[in-house]
Amino acid sequence: MSLPLRVGLAGLGNVGAGVVKLLADNAELIARRAGRPIRVTAVSARDRNRDRGIDLARYHWVDDATELAGRDDVDVVVELIGGSDGPALTLARRTLAAGKALVTANKAMLAHHGLDLAATAEAGQLALKYEAAVAGGIPIIKALSEGMAANRIARVYGLLNGTCNYILSRMEAERLDFATVLAEAQAAGYAEADPSFDIDGIDTAHKLSLLAALAFGARIDFAAVATHGIRAVELADIDQARALGFRIKLVGLAEHEDGTLFQRVHPALVPLDHPLAAASGALNAVTAEGDFVGRLFFQGRGAGEGPTASAVVADLIDIARGISGNPFGMPVASLAALPPAAIANRRGRYYLRLTVADRPGVLAELTAALRDHGVSIESLIQRGPAANGDAMVVMVTHIAGETQVLASLAQMAQGDAVTGAPVMMHILDL
Amino acid sequence: MSLPLRVGLAGLGNVGAGVVKLLADNAELIARRAGRPIRVTAVSARDRNRDRGIDLARYHWVDDATELAGRDDVDVVVELIGGSDGPALTLARRTLAAGKALVTANKAMLAHHGLDLAATAEAGQLALKYEAAVAGGIPIIKALSEGMAANRIARVYGLLNGTCNYILSRMEAERLDFATVLAEAQAAGYAEADPSFDIDGIDTAHKLSLLAALAFGARIDFAAVATHGIRAVELADIDQARALGFRIKLVGLAEHEDGTLFQRVHPALVPLDHPLAAASGALNAVTAEGDFVGRLFFQGRGAGEGPTASAVVADLIDIARGISGNPFGMPVASLAALPPAAIANRRGRYYLRLTVADRPGVLAELTAALRDHGVSIESLIQRGPAANGDAMVVMVTHIAGETQVLASLAQMAQGDAVTGAPVMMHILDL
Repeated sequence: MSLPLRVGLAGLGNVGAGVVKLLADNAELIARRAGRPIRVTAVSARDRNRDRGIDLARYHWVDDATELAGRDDVDVVVELIGGSDGPALTLARRTLAAGKALVTANKAMLAHHGLDLAATAEAGQLALKYEAAVAGGIPIIKALSEGMAANRIARVYGLLNGTCNYILSRMEAERLDFATVLAEAQAAGYAEADPSFDIDGIDTAHKLSLLAALAFGARIDFAAVATHGIRAVELADIDQARALGFRIKLVGLAEHEDGTLFQRVHPALVPLDHPLAAASGALNAVTAEGDFVGRLFFQGRGAGEGPTASAVVADLIDIARGISGNPFGMPVASLAALPPAAIANRRGRYYLRLTVADRPGVLAELTAALRDHGVSIESLIQRGPAANGDAMVVMVTHIAGETQVLASLAQMAQGDAVTGAPVMMHILDL
Repeated sequence: MSLPLRVGLAGLGNVGAGVVKLLADNAELIARRAGRPIRVTAVSARDRNRDRGIDLARYHWVDDATELAGRDDVDVVVELIGGSDGPALTLARRTLAAGKALVTANKAMLAHHGLDLAATAEAGQLALKYEAAVAGGIPIIKALSEGMAANRIARVYGLLNGTCNYILSRMEAERLDFATVLAEAQAAGYAEADPSFDIDGIDTAHKLSLLAALAFGARIDFAAVATHGIRAVELADIDQARALGFRIKLVGLAEHEDGTLFQRVHPALVPLDHPLAAASGALNAVTAEGDFVGRLFFQGRGAGEGPTASAVVADLIDIARGISGNPFGMPVASLAALPPAAIANRRGRYYLRLTVADRPGVLAELTAALRDHGVSIESLIQRGPAANGDAMVVMVTHIAGETQVLASLAQMAQGDAVTGAPVMMHILDL
């Protein structure tokens, strides 16, 4: 058996501790599969003394994570520090500069600096791998860059944030409002104290921008992702969607169309018979469509110690086997700079929920506003007045342009029929 | 850009023609992803003159497919002839003997000769790849051997035969019996003139034996797969299963338990909320469970020109990139020879459908037979007598041993209450 692959591990949170445990528990199996042992030699984290359930005495401790890059007993650095810049980025750059392979779970860093890092890795013929950065244990990076490599990929979309999926699933199952479920999830450790990256869709956008680059051979364009989170999703919407045959999910969707790149993260109504609708709780799920393979669907646990460690170690096994390849499936220099698609040109069906005054003529005003912009109505539900006297009107449009739907809503806002902020969501007809 | 990878292609049925089309249609994209062009140089098939919608004049024609192995203008042979032995096996052996890489979609050949071929490939450090042999376009070979490589895999199961899934789905959707749907599928070209390999579960068993070897690091043991097909599935079973909250699917299931290998192909009742239940029509779907990653689920088109060609070309791209590795995820010499599990020790819930005489005391006899063997009943439906006077009793047992359930049925057969052959199917509680 060949020499061991020696790992320097930066960051010992859940995932880092999981990587240490996994490499220890399955050491013999991994050595047989990888053709050589994979051993952690040095570790670094903020707090040396926290109890992580692992014996750190077996590894060299390094106070400054960025020093892992320069160690002679490290062949590959695993970066699990997190954050788009700061020590994670410094460590990543130093690792590649030192001629070492890099494995990272850091989608924020890659969304912002992935092309630079990949170009450096390519120049040095170094592996830069990040299976754990997107969809946890689902091997979606490998599926897009290798399994589907023969295909022109037109579209990739899915549920990429377990926290959001958990919150929406629990709102529906327990009939609780967003704030209650979020507070619960924070108390249970499923959501961060500052949940913004998750619930505002930023984490999903980071991941989506990486999937889009891989799928379409495009330069990462995180700034162009139209990003909407789930803070505004109300139980009323979940209920009305369900009554209409849909489930609300935070969907990240990227399409390559006519040389442009469409990227959006948004709560969307997913038809109940679509496999994404059945991916509940903390699951992640991804659909990718290739011109020859058709539609592939992947589902699994998107976060947590075990699944993420599984993805990190899969990357290490690839490196131990001598498999590297271009981080984004082709050389960075070959990636196309695709202009962002005009979101307003998007066509589709829309879900609208309007809080309206309970007086004669209201429906006529609403429907006239839609008609004036060429938007036709597929279904409409009016619910009788609540205690405060407001009624609710829920509509699903036929396929219409986003601009036209927005113009209709703007016209409605001119009158006094609509008394609250209108809710508009996209229907995922894919 | 490096020298092209030159492909000799044996077999120009749907899949072979699909590979030619795919390599032509996406040539530029594939070259960018693979780092070099991939070009078909020589082809062979039984009939040179059949119209396949592709221009064969661009390739050297070889009458005897096995001669592709010896050609100087061929770096890798793609074997799409089919059949476990005969020319496919001869070609495979000659290819590896000539020091060339082999890509095959031939599950029958691999189920019978995979270990020998893999050992030869390993000895010569040659790639032997077969993504297209299992589950068509789903990259399940890559997922098991690379994506999940860090995990001890305990179980892999799924729907691996599109013809069976199509037939069962159509029986349910159109309320047709098995023979009618099979005849239709044959007329439409979805089922072979001799459908035995598909509907008797043999094709599924071939594929399952490969997945089990990969997942568990075990030697292929096709002969030990307990194989049951779908010929005996009646519309009545589909209906009763549905009423109880299940859908009948042909499931291939492999488990690694206490050093033994459990492998079975059988029609099983899948709970409607299990993702396998929603994989309808010609789709394939696979679930694999790893100790760290948890349960992963994959779904896609399992057959047909496009998906299978996508898998073949993914293998070619890997080879062009210089990725080979052990065909079964670790050296053949490291694969464990696992003894087959004792099927009779299996425990689970069972579905029983009994045709019974319509007279007093019948239910007492049936339930006594189950009680005598310690099998308890979870639910029971009795349907009133049909025109011929027979009644139907459908039961779902609590978890019980297979031996005990079979003994109960044998006891029932001693009396005259049961007038037709009993139907017994497994419930997939996974």
